[in-house]
Amino acid sequence: MFGFRSFIPWEVSKLVAMFQAAAQTVFVSSAAASVYRSVFLVGCRRYCKKIPTKLRISEALSGAELGAEVKVQGWVRSVRPQKNNIFLHVNDGSSLQSLQIVGQAKLNDPLLTFGSAVEVTGILKKSPHQKQPVELEAEQIRVVGECNPVDFPFKIKDRHSLEYTRQLPHLRCRTNAFSSLLRIRSEATAAIHSYFKNNGFVQIHTPIITSNDCEGAGELFKVEPSGPDFSDDEEFFSVPAFLTVSGQLHLEVMSGAFSRVYTFGPTFRAENSQSRRHLAEFFMVEAEISFTESLDDLTKVMEDMFRSATEHVMARCVEDVDLFHRHVTPGHRDAVEAMLNKSFPVITYTEAIDILNRSSERFTFPTDWGCDLMTEHEKHLVKHCGNLPVFVTDYPYDLKPFYARDNQDHPRHTAAAVDLLVPGVGELCGGSLREERLNLLMARLKQAGLEDTYSWYLDLRRFGSVPHGGFGLGFERYLQCILGVDNIKDVIPFPRFSHSCML
Amino acid sequence: MFGFRSFIPWEVSKLVAMFQAAAQTVFVSSAAASVYRSVFLVGCRRYCKKIPTKLRISEALSGAELGAEVKVQGWVRSVRPQKNNIFLHVNDGSSLQSLQIVGQAKLNDPLLTFGSAVEVTGILKKSPHQKQPVELEAEQIRVVGECNPVDFPFKIKDRHSLEYTRQLPHLRCRTNAFSSLLRIRSEATAAIHSYFKNNGFVQIHTPIITSNDCEGAGELFKVEPSGPDFSDDEEFFSVPAFLTVSGQLHLEVMSGAFSRVYTFGPTFRAENSQSRRHLAEFFMVEAEISFTESLDDLTKVMEDMFRSATEHVMARCVEDVDLFHRHVTPGHRDAVEAMLNKSFPVITYTEAIDILNRSSERFTFPTDWGCDLMTEHEKHLVKHCGNLPVFVTDYPYDLKPFYARDNQDHPRHTAAAVDLLVPGVGELCGGSLREERLNLLMARLKQAGLEDTYSWYLDLRRFGSVPHGGFGLGFERYLQCILGVDNIKDVIPFPRFSHSCML
Repeated sequence: MFGFRSFIPWEVSKLVAMFQAAAQTVFVSSAAASVYRSVFLVGCRRYCKKIPTKLRISEALSGAELGAEVKVQGWVRSVRPQKNNIFLHVNDGSSLQSLQIVGQAKLNDPLLTFGSAVEVTGILKKSPHQKQPVELEAEQIRVVGECNPVDFPFKIKDRHSLEYTRQLPHLRCRTNAFSSLLRIRSEATAAIHSYFKNNGFVQIHTPIITSNDCEGAGELFKVEPSGPDFSDDEEFFSVPAFLTVSGQLHLEVMSGAFSRVYTFGPTFRAENSQSRRHLAEFFMVEAEISFTESLDDLTKVMEDMFRSATEHVMARCVEDVDLFHRHVTPGHRDAVEAMLNKSFPVITYTEAIDILNRSSERFTFPTDWGCDLMTEHEKHLVKHCGNLPVFVTDYPYDLKPFYARDNQDHPRHTAAAVDLLVPGVGELCGGSLREERLNLLMARLKQAGLEDTYSWYLDLRRFGSVPHGGFGLGFERYLQCILGVDNIKDVIPFPRFSHSCML
Repeated sequence: MFGFRSFIPWEVSKLVAMFQAAAQTVFVSSAAASVYRSVFLVGCRRYCKKIPTKLRISEALSGAELGAEVKVQGWVRSVRPQKNNIFLHVNDGSSLQSLQIVGQAKLNDPLLTFGSAVEVTGILKKSPHQKQPVELEAEQIRVVGECNPVDFPFKIKDRHSLEYTRQLPHLRCRTNAFSSLLRIRSEATAAIHSYFKNNGFVQIHTPIITSNDCEGAGELFKVEPSGPDFSDDEEFFSVPAFLTVSGQLHLEVMSGAFSRVYTFGPTFRAENSQSRRHLAEFFMVEAEISFTESLDDLTKVMEDMFRSATEHVMARCVEDVDLFHRHVTPGHRDAVEAMLNKSFPVITYTEAIDILNRSSERFTFPTDWGCDLMTEHEKHLVKHCGNLPVFVTDYPYDLKPFYARDNQDHPRHTAAAVDLLVPGVGELCGGSLREERLNLLMARLKQAGLEDTYSWYLDLRRFGSVPHGGFGLGFERYLQCILGVDNIKDVIPFPRFSHSCML
């Protein structure tokens, strides 16, 4: 809301600010506020005599300032000089759609090339063509930043593959597909925060550097100062420090005082993998809920969050999502709508094993009770359940980490853990009830020789322990799932994986 | 909205879900929805015969379910057994205020101690006392998790110092002050995201692991895999990798396609410091704006964001903020209100040096033109400007990094950089216009021998370069500033600094 003010003289600028403050207080709807704003601005402009309103492209396209003299700024996406006229498309990242600029031929300039930055003033008019609602009749076109079409690695007529653009991390946001992806990612992030906020969760910034080794795996990154101030013998933190693999244990700390907490941030795995589903740095949404009674309390939140975020993104990023659903993975829209319209089936691990064993498919990996589910198994289960996301619950106790709650069943001993498997991606979420009973937890940690390491964790069960549980969702996999993007490197701004850390 | 359903049988649960969906569609106001929900639930309960509604403490305190049978869950903050009755205060982190429980003496239980977890069912009634609006007349009190008062490191009658609670990172969220802090931190985070979203910024998840050394300082953490899969000779990423000190350069990449972007996440400094203003891991809000015309375009956003977030927090976290403004830093409220009611003064670095040299104060560090401003100078300037946040602009060119825009003035050569200094904390924000002119940037990088390292950065100026600028705000310092908290370790869930990385 602030950008358009730069060209209005001081007194009017004050008036506009006062008006805006009032309007924001009165109108919940920004659409209503925007209409009133334009009425007000038309008044201002009369008073100031032709000061062009600075508009973002999305604002210009919305048609709010039709007939007004405006200024837009952005990057040229196409140039079409004709005998009498020149046609440009200008984009500033505020929407996938560009604004069509029409100018007299004399406004042409050899520097007006694909990728150059321009500033255009003119009158916003209803477009005579159906393709776009409005166009800008240019009075002035100024090239702000040149772009040599020979050197620029993207060419105006070419359709660049995702593989090609991935090699240019500093420029790929200038392609339609990746700028759409970034807008969707931003909106999905906001939607997830909204979901938790609306449901009374407190957001916790769990730490990136930790002295915990949460999963006990060897896939950790170690953190050490690189400067000369510290010798190799001395630890900066006095203890070995690592990049977090999960905020769970830190959230569990908080769930001793807050009944609902969540975190949304980067997590790390030093896996030597180049798979299309793994990154060394990826974003996780994790939630922890106190006073749970069964896994249903978790699956409900997982499903609600998925649905709420996805509906939000589909409604707010119509064009951007469409680009993926039409051009990247044709037909994916139907798959997403099926996910939204049907509730997610729930099966136990034991039922899953039965399904696999009854199937005619030949699997590479064993499907005996007690074996972990592999990608081929996950795929089969999702397909078996109608290509819907499917919850698999109650895994073998021995497959799950020390914190998973013991179901105390037998002979098939299980823990109250749950995974959400989704079409195309496999495991999207993993969660469990946590062992809140001091004696059971202590016995398991003792057995693993971790009793001292986790004495602070045992404290959480010593003082006011409550039944609780939580889950994590891989945010990039979520984006892959709803957009139908095959490679995880194409849904994160700057992918990090083994042998690659560009910029 | 999902918690209260657990005890309603299946069919009713479906009905409730349908109603909720409808209510959420129709009502923007959750207050209105909540009133309708309770009317509806009273109907449900009649049909189901006495199923207690599960309520969060904040919901119970709001008085929405007066007269209804409810269930609350939380941790005991006080126990007062009397001859005929027992009084408890129960808190679940949803608000600073606890709910008073009144029960007959026979409901007392030796396990009902400070810190224990309980589940209470009973009737919500208007309280006869002025201290609280409602109280719960208990029918049943169940201890869910014990808490031995001898072992529990917090004592019911003691007021624990911030220093003491800091030593117990896994339990300190159970104190009033720290749980208030965490609610405020969560709300401030949401407010900052809202500010940017409402102003058309796209959120970018800038990477944590980077191969850049943005500031050229030696204060970096190096990242290496800790597992046995990688030998010491081989780099996991094939290049040296570090923890980010700023997302700026990555945001600048994005500002070649989006006119407004921001990021909000952790950043790192391997500084061997134990100061009350520094951490090894801290959160930064960074924004980058394209098509800027002067530093005003930045200071306006910095001031707006500060004001918008602070007003939001003051309005939404009244009790929590009050705890700090009354008990931690008495009188701080007036200081904050002064910041909100007056606009922030702007002075140039040259004016700042004049002010310092004209003052009668004796400084330890020199105040010659060209010297950096030290803490003592910052303090003096803030005081000089009426204890308001003050912008200092146009610093000596040689003090600023290569990316700061050259003002091309002389003899006193400055760059278009700006810092925001605030009372009590010092530097809260730092920003600059970025050098968008290829020839000037290339010359400066050449001089520093960094031309090859930053060839990708030069590309941003080769292809559609635009005038742009941005800033970073230290989120912990922001919280210190508005709450009056002296030590930065008391405003972050898990502080990391030299010789300390607990949990």
